[in-house]
Amino acid sequence: MDGTILWLTGLSGSGKTTLATAVATRLRPWRPVEILDGDEIRKQLSPDLGFTREDRELNVWRIGFVARLLARHGVLAIAAAISPYASSRNEIRRLAVNDGVRFVEVFLDAELQCLVDRDVKGLYQRALAGELANFSGISDPYEAPTHPEIVVRTDRESPDVSAQKIVDALVALGVVRNTTTDQTSSV
Amino acid sequence: MDGTILWLTGLSGSGKTTLATAVATRLRPWRPVEILDGDEIRKQLSPDLGFTREDRELNVWRIGFVARLLARHGVLAIAAAISPYASSRNEIRRLAVNDGVRFVEVFLDAELQCLVDRDVKGLYQRALAGELANFSGISDPYEAPTHPEIVVRTDRESPDVSAQKIVDALVALGVVRNTTTDQTSSV
Repeated sequence: MDGTILWLTGLSGSGKTTLATAVATRLRPWRPVEILDGDEIRKQLSPDLGFTREDRELNVWRIGFVARLLARHGVLAIAAAISPYASSRNEIRRLAVNDGVRFVEVFLDAELQCLVDRDVKGLYQRALAGELANFSGISDPYEAPTHPEIVVRTDRESPDVSAQKIVDALVALGVVRNTTTDQTSSV
Repeated sequence: MDGTILWLTGLSGSGKTTLATAVATRLRPWRPVEILDGDEIRKQLSPDLGFTREDRELNVWRIGFVARLLARHGVLAIAAAISPYASSRNEIRRLAVNDGVRFVEVFLDAELQCLVDRDVKGLYQRALAGELANFSGISDPYEAPTHPEIVVRTDRESPDVSAQKIVDALVALGVVRNTTTDQTSSV
């Protein structure tokens, strides 16, 4: 089966890790899947990096490099990273397509205020207090995708609903041929 | 087919990249193969790293991390890196085995004097002149493997002979079932 990069981008707390896990769980019976979680990859590959624009782009670049390698071998590589800069995401897409790998961008859209109110990790409070520099959406820009293949509204939908939307879209795009959890798909 | 890490270790100029390419070319018709070349991975993932022990271990660690991910998906990941420190190689082996991935260490053995005489990249001359700090074998230790699965003498054998020895050993170890170039194997 063709390799694909499923790139989940969205603000901190928008549900990237949760959705990556939910989508991976649904698809693992059907095809090889690997999750590349931004925080985990940072811990493993980038203990030396901070959170300046340069350092964050380098971490995103590393995720993209590993995702491409995996996808070239038929894996569905699910990247879950804030990846706030459009130029980095677009460059990874360009290289993936060059490699014959599909790149499917998923925008986890959520009102900033909703994420601040939830503040799952307590990071927004610290960012708003000025304790965290370069915090996307607060003290650093987040450049939302202009043409993502998939948009999910994680502030209004349950993770189950968002995950199923992504799976349905992957079936419609031909990335996944069929799944038991997708009996209503039009494909 | 089970994933495997084929880890080529040896001094600069011992033929790691050449052998990785030769082995990959022989095996690609038979199974998925990916080369993770130390210099290339450093360029892609570690433009920020220098050549201190800490930085070199981090680069080797990154190669090991990516190799494990690929091997977990059935790829034969061929790492070609000086990887001078036994502790780093052994730790990557331990994690690979934990993941259910085979780790096959190949020691590219060659007399230092022979590599200095060849000096393919002109690096030994610079290292001996004191211009390159932390140069394995000259100004930094190279800890040869004590129990490598495969040893090739790249100072005495042609790359073709060494490559075929590695392929034969992989067949004997059950990593590759059969190859056209391996009609004399006992397996």
